Parts: sequence; C-alpha cells; structure tokens
Amino acid sequence: MKHFTSVHDVDDPQALMERALALKKLPPEALLEIGRHKTLVLLFLNPSLRTRLSTQKAGFSLGMQVMVHNAGQGWQLEFEEGNIMNGDKAEHVKEAAAVISQYADIIGVRTFPGLKDRAADYQDAILKQFMRYATVPVVSLESAIRHPLQSLADWLTITEHRPAHRPKVVLSWAPHPRPLPQAVANSFIEWMKVADVDLTVAHPEGYELAPEFHEGTAVEHDQRKALDGADFVYVKNWSSYHDYGQVKINSPEWMITPEKMSLTREGRFMHCLPVRRNVVIADAVIDHPRSLHLQQSHNRTWAAAAAIEALLQPQNH
Amino acid sequence: MKHFTSVHDVDDPQALMERALALKKLPPEALLEIGRHKTLVLLFLNPSLRTRLSTQKAGFSLGMQVMVHNAGQGWQLEFEEGNIMNGDKAEHVKEAAAVISQYADIIGVRTFPGLKDRAADYQDAILKQFMRYATVPVVSLESAIRHPLQSLADWLTITEHRPAHRPKVVLSWAPHPRPLPQAVANSFIEWMKVADVDLTVAHPEGYELAPEFHEGTAVEHDQRKALDGADFVYVKNWSSYHDYGQVKINSPEWMITPEKMSLTREGRFMHCLPVRRNVVIADAVIDHPRSLHLQQSHNRTWAAAAAIEALLQPQNH
Amino acid sequence: MKHFTSVHDVDDPQALMERALALKKLPPEALLEIGRHKTLVLLFLNPSLRTRLSTQKAGFSLGMQVMVHNAGQGWQLEFEEGNIMNGDKAEHVKEAAAVISQYADIIGVRTFPGLKDRAADYQDAILKQFMRYATVPVVSLESAIRHPLQSLADWLTITEHRPAHRPKVVLSWAPHPRPLPQAVANSFIEWMKVADVDLTVAHPEGYELAPEFHEGTAVEHDQRKALDGADFVYVKNWSSYHDYGQVKINSPEWMITPEKMSLTREGRFMHCLPVRRNVVIADAVIDHPRSLHLQQSHNRTWAAAAAIEALLQPQNH
Repeated sequence: MKHFTSVHDVDDPQALMERALALKKLPPEALLEIGRHKTLVLLFLNPSLRTRLSTQKAGFSLGMQVMVHNAGQGWQLEFEEGNIMNGDKAEHVKEAAAVISQYADIIGVRTFPGLKDRAADYQDAILKQFMRYATVPVVSLESAIRHPLQSLADWLTITEHRPAHRPKVVLSWAPHPRPLPQAVANSFIEWMKVADVDLTVAHPEGYELAPEFHEGTAVEHDQRKALDGADFVYVKNWSSYHDYGQVKINSPEWMITPEKMSLTREGRFMHCLPVRRNVVIADAVIDHPRSLHLQQSHNRTWAAAAAIEALLQPQNH
Repeated sequence: MKHFTSVHDVDDPQALMERALALKKLPPEALLEIGRHKTLVLLFLNPSLRTRLSTQKAGFSLGMQVMVHNAGQGWQLEFEEGNIMNGDKAEHVKEAAAVISQYADIIGVRTFPGLKDRAADYQDAILKQFMRYATVPVVSLESAIRHPLQSLADWLTITEHRPAHRPKVVLSWAPHPRPLPQAVANSFIEWMKVADVDLTVAHPEGYELAPEFHEGTAVEHDQRKALDGADFVYVKNWSSYHDYGQVKINSPEWMITPEKMSLTREGRFMHCLPVRRNVVIADAVIDHPRSLHLQQSHNRTWAAAAAIEALLQPQNH
Repeated sequence: MKHFTSVHDVDDPQALMERALALKKLPPEALLEIGRHKTLVLLFLNPSLRTRLSTQKAGFSLGMQVMVHNAGQGWQLEFEEGNIMNGDKAEHVKEAAAVISQYADIIGVRTFPGLKDRAADYQDAILKQFMRYATVPVVSLESAIRHPLQSLADWLTITEHRPAHRPKVVLSWAPHPRPLPQAVANSFIEWMKVADVDLTVAHPEGYELAPEFHEGTAVEHDQRKALDGADFVYVKNWSSYHDYGQVKINSPEWMITPEKMSLTREGRFMHCLPVRRNVVIADAVIDHPRSLHLQQSHNRTWAAAAAIEALLQPQNH
C-alpha cells in the first residue's frame, strides 16, 4: 500500500480490518516495536478532535515520534502549478510536501472541501497534490470527498457487534443547520461495499450522492421503510451533491427518534461525531446503551494504527 | 482519588504533598515507570504557559504519552442539557468528554470563569460536566473557581522554605488593571487550611471572597498590619466576589514594595504568575533573592506528577 | 558553548559542522542516548514550518522530551525594563524566560524583526532578553537578524556537494513582493566567512547589508557577472537595510532563470524556503535535479541536533 486515502488503496481491505482488531488486542510492548524510530507528521488544514487525538495516539502506541502541525503555524500554501506567486501564498505545496517528507516517514493530511465548486472538490486536489509531491506515504485524515480512517473504524465497530445473520446496515441522511461535506457518507458506502453487509442509503430526494459512490447501492426515500429491520443505523448529514453544497430542504422529520429506532431489529445507532443533539438525533437515541458512537471513536485509534502499520511495510520504501 | 479538582478530592493532602517532594528526588528511570503506557490529554479552553508546560513535563517525566488539545483546534462545545443544537456549537460536552476518554487515561481541563454570572461560575459547570461525562479521571488545570495544582505547588514551596516555627502566611490582595478570577485565592485558602500554618487574608473592603472559602480565616483590611511578622507573603489580585467580577477600587497603595516587605519576618514573596511588575509588586521585591516565584513554578511539575500518579492508582479504574 | 545564536557562539564551527554530518550517520539507538531525560522547549513568537518540524525531530531523535509553545497560547510578553505593566502585556520576559527554564534543559526561541526600527531590530532585543533571563542555554530558531541553524544546515549541504576545487559561492538577492528580514543573508555570510569557500554577494544597489555582516565580503551589483563560474547559487530576498525595511526597487530582472544558471559552473541552486516560484526563481531552476533546497531542509535536523548536543555538554551547566 503506497498511500491510504480510500478503500481502493488497500489490497485486501478485509485483512486490514482484521489486523486492526488484532492490534487492539496486542500488549503495549509489542505495539511499540511496530513504528520504532519512525516519525509521523500530522498536518491539519482544518479543525479536528477525534482524528487529531486518535491518530496521535495510534502513532504513540506504535512507538513513533509524532509531530502535529496546524495550518496557521506556517505559511499559506499555493496549490496551482506554474503561478507567479506574488500574492498571499508564501509556499508551494511542491516544497511543503517534499520538505515535510524530509522529517516524516508518514504524512497525515486533513482537508475539507470548499463546497462551492464541485468539480474542484471532487478532484480532491489538495490531498492529491500532497500525494504527488510527498516522497513518503500519505494517510488521509479526511479529504474533500472521503474519510477512510472513519469508515475503517466504523467497519471494526460493526464487526465487533455483528449479529449471527448478514446484517442490514442503513446509512440515513439527517438534518443539520449547516452545509456539510459528503465525505463521511461517500467513504462509508465505499467500505460497506467490500464488507459482508446489506447496505441501504436513505435520504430525501435531492440528496443523491455522487454517482461513483452511489451506484450499485440500494436507495430509499422513505426513511421508515429503510429502517425496517435494520441492525445498524448510521446517521449522517450531508449537503446536496447535485445542487452542490446547498442545504435544500432541512427536513426536521428526518431526525432519528426512539420511535424510529423501534422500527429496527434492535438496531445499533452509529455516528462519526461531532453530532448536534436534538437536530440530527434525539437525546434518547444517542444516550441509549445500544448506541455505538463511542466505540466508533475508540476504534479510530486502531483503524489508524492498522493503516500506519501497512504504510510502514518495507515494500513501500 | 477519583478526580483532582480541589483539596476535598484528596484523602490525605499531607501525604500527597510529601509524595510530590519525594517524586522530585526520584531518578528519571524510576519516574518513567509510573505512567508507562498511559496517556495524558490536556485540554485548554483558555490560555496557559506554566500549567501547559509543567503538566506536559510531569506527564513526560512519568513516561506517559501526552497530547495537548487547544480549543479552537476542534469545535465549540455545548454545555447545556437537552438543547436543540442548531446554533454555533457543533459538539456536546457529553460526547467530547466521553470521546477524549477513549484516548486518555487522564484528562486535564483548563477553563476560566466568565466573571459575568456568579452563580454560573461558582457551579464550576464546565469542569463538572467534564467530570460527569469523562470515563477517566479528570485533573483540573484551573477551573472557574479553583487552581489546585497551583496551590499544591505553593504548599510544596512553603514546606521547602519552612522556618522552625509555625509560619505566618499572608495572602494579600494587590491591584491589577483587569478583572481576574478568584480561583488562585480560593484554592490557596483551601489548601492552607489543611497545612500547618497560620493564614491571614488581607484585602481592601469590598474584596471579600466567597463565604465557603473565606470562612474560618483571619481577615485583615490593613495590609501593613497583616504583613507584620509574616514568613510568606502570597500576593494575588482578584476581582470582587460580591460585586461580581468588578474592579471596585484599584488601590495602587496595595502594591507590594520593599518598604512593606521590611515589616515581615524576612518574609518570602510568592506569586503564581503571570505578574504585572510595578502594578502588583515593585521590581525590587520580585527581583529579591528571597522571592519564591520561580520555585513555585518549578514545583508545578511535581504537584502535577503527584496528582497524576494518585489518579493512576488501580483502585480508580 | 553557552548559547547557539550565531557563529560567534561556537568555539570551533568546522568541528560542529563535521559533528552534524557524523550525527546524520549514527544509528537511531546511539542518537537516543545523547539527550536522554532532557527536555527541549521550543517557543514560537512567529510562524515556522521547517524550523518547527526539524528542531522537534532533532530533539526526538536525540531522545529528548519536546514541548512546543506558540505565542498566543499564553500571554503577551513585556520586553521593556522597569515599566509599569498596566497595559496589554501580562507577563515580563524576566519571568517567562526564567519560568520556561524550570521546565527545559534548552529553550529554542523564534522571533522576527519588526522591520520598522533598525536600531531596535539590530539589538536583537527579544532573543537577548531570553538569553539574559533564561537559566538554561538558548538556541536561536531565527532571530531578528540571524538564522544560524539555517546557515549551519546550508554549510552541511555545501560540504556534501563540494567540488574538488575551492568552491565559488554566490549569495544573490532576488525580488519578492513583501519586505523580508535580512536574517538569512546576514547569517549565511557570517558562516561562509569561516567556511573554506569563495563568497560573492550580489544585489542591486540599495540592498547593501549591515556593515558588520557585509564587510570583508566581495560585492557585485551585476548579477550575471557574479554568477559566472559559481558552484553554488544561494538565492534570497531581503529588504533594504539602509532604507530600513523598504522594498526599494523590486527588480524582476533579478529573478533566477535557467539562462542565468547556464552562466555558472553547473551551479547548484540553494534556497532556505519558503520560496515564491516564478518571482524569486523560475520553476525550471527549482525543479532541476541540481537544486539543493530539499537537502538543505533535510540538513536542518542535523544542524539542530549538533547544536543541541553541544549545548547539552556538562561544562555548560
């Protein structure tokens, strides 16, 4: 594995997921050998809580030296090729990525979409530029269109709570006051396609995701019908892809309530967090013992540890 | 000890203080075993220099993995229960505290009072919410109303310079251009009550502290009278508790000068820092060899180390 | 060596440079012993990418505990003596430097000049105040007038690519849209004076550097003439020293192009970064395989490691 930016980077996703669960059970001393004398640099162009802490913790647990760099502690970056750089941007990503590679064995990059220009966001240009100019592996800490560490952690969590039967997993859109990226939803669909689950995506009309993620997935516009018999209910807002970055109708009736959860097969609530209580979900759902949101957060560490371990394999260097 | 947020959390404060002094003398290799494979997360909702560096250093010295998270690198937190979160705040403390607990063995929290609403500040709601929703011990890095690591470090310092007789300790209010919290003064009084010292609190009328901290303590409105025969002079500004958060009269005559120090029994000047020179104290006092402010700063590391060690004891888990 | 703030602090600069190259070849386990149980605090009063990451990495590689503190996470500092501190500044550098010394074995300080008041900047007051009040060695992470870790890294890089003959090194001014410090140029000249090279400084009239750096150095106002036969071409903008902090004429004809590089003796392009492409240099120069800018970045780690090791020697304590 050269980089870790989507499920498509991974030769054997099932094996990676199982390795993450195995790492979770290793004693600390064994973990510390995995990344010994290696350095992880995490670069945040956008805010982060879970990703920041869980990926740092993964690095520390693997015995790595970890350096966190926030945009704003350095210079504004130029991402365009061939520009005459006489404006605000003091450094080109060509230099930034290559320079950070001088100090890192793996570089993590966090970046959000602008949600203004769909074509630009869906090129995932900032992440791609880092991949192009870094001379070491890049791990996505969420990019404009994907959040693969989140999805891998979600898959760990589903596996740990998997019923005896092939589970029904519902990814349901939910309302939110602000326009949010499609990254978590896109990525979750991609990873669930390689998992042994039955996936349904539920959303109001107008919230269709990008065809490359969407296609081949069952879609339901009736949320209650989708929830019927669900084992896992992954709730997440996203803004419109087709009317790009817009909050079209902010349908409060799509909030997840206890009454809706009663339609499921003792369904487990999932959310990547942060979550707005009583907008996206009712307090009583997230506070219910069947809610898995904290296990998802916990598994972020092990998803990151497995991805980092894979990127440190000698064949990558 | 479940949490470390005030002297009341500590079963045997004297033993904790003595343990801090013992840790200070341990060789580095012995210290490193105490927190081995444990993770300390320090969360700063407000600025900090000493607390930030000394608590990090305590964690490192105990062999811990340390992660520092500043508010502003993540999301604005909601602290109210049951709210419909459709405003500015993207994450509830219920999730934030529980999620950080997934990555931490101990969480440190730094928060200041708003100094607008006394009842709200004196509930110490932000710290209390973290204590309620974290699933691991919380150590206060200063809260709205207390600064226990400072007070424990102050006690170490007094013990190290203790005269043969029971010492007279004076906590004197001093002027300051801005309204400051009462936290350091409140906390110092609380800890001095369990120390074997004679405490007098000196302040102009109108600067009475909250009754729960104040009561049982000798108060003097004549600063010179208070300083007479003092062994330790702890100087600190605070804003009014009764006329909450106000700077009532900013009496420059309460500044500590060499002439006032001459009233003491070769008294040692103490301050928690940061301090405004020639407002709170004259240069000649703080620059005098009898000043203990740097020893107090130094002892912050050992106060933190002792509190962390106590919180890591197995009976807490 | 008591501090590391200029070449003048170093007893034997050649030996330090050679030690840096030797450290670069040591196995990780040997490096880890050098700074074991020691703490490095890096204080950034201004932004930084390379210095921040490379100095942290040096500290980690030497087995140190590293703490990074950004201005803005603490208090605004007062640098004037004897002031009545009733304004914006909450802490005096006397306390800040002495307090950080309680937690650090070495303190790194990064500060930029204001470029308004030449006399003030050239006193290098902020760095000097830290040196004065810190009780542990100070390493400059770039000050108002010098950037010695950069220059030492530059020297390593020149040594690694040194031709058989005594090399001609040209430091050439280049255009830039903003007024920049003279620190990199000043420092490079200082270090090249002790290196076994032939140095020429090329700049348009009006960009003379401060006499104390300038004197004894060949100066050329005709850039092409300077480049003739050069082995190394160090390109760097600086604002005017004589018309202090001004961008007098922003001569685009001083940009380094492939055609100009053809005047050299297969000259190696050097730059400290960040660099503005197609303003300071043409893409084709920096993207050429003979460009050494990434090696310079890489060597920052080893320059820092050598300086830190020297500051940790027992005779300093």
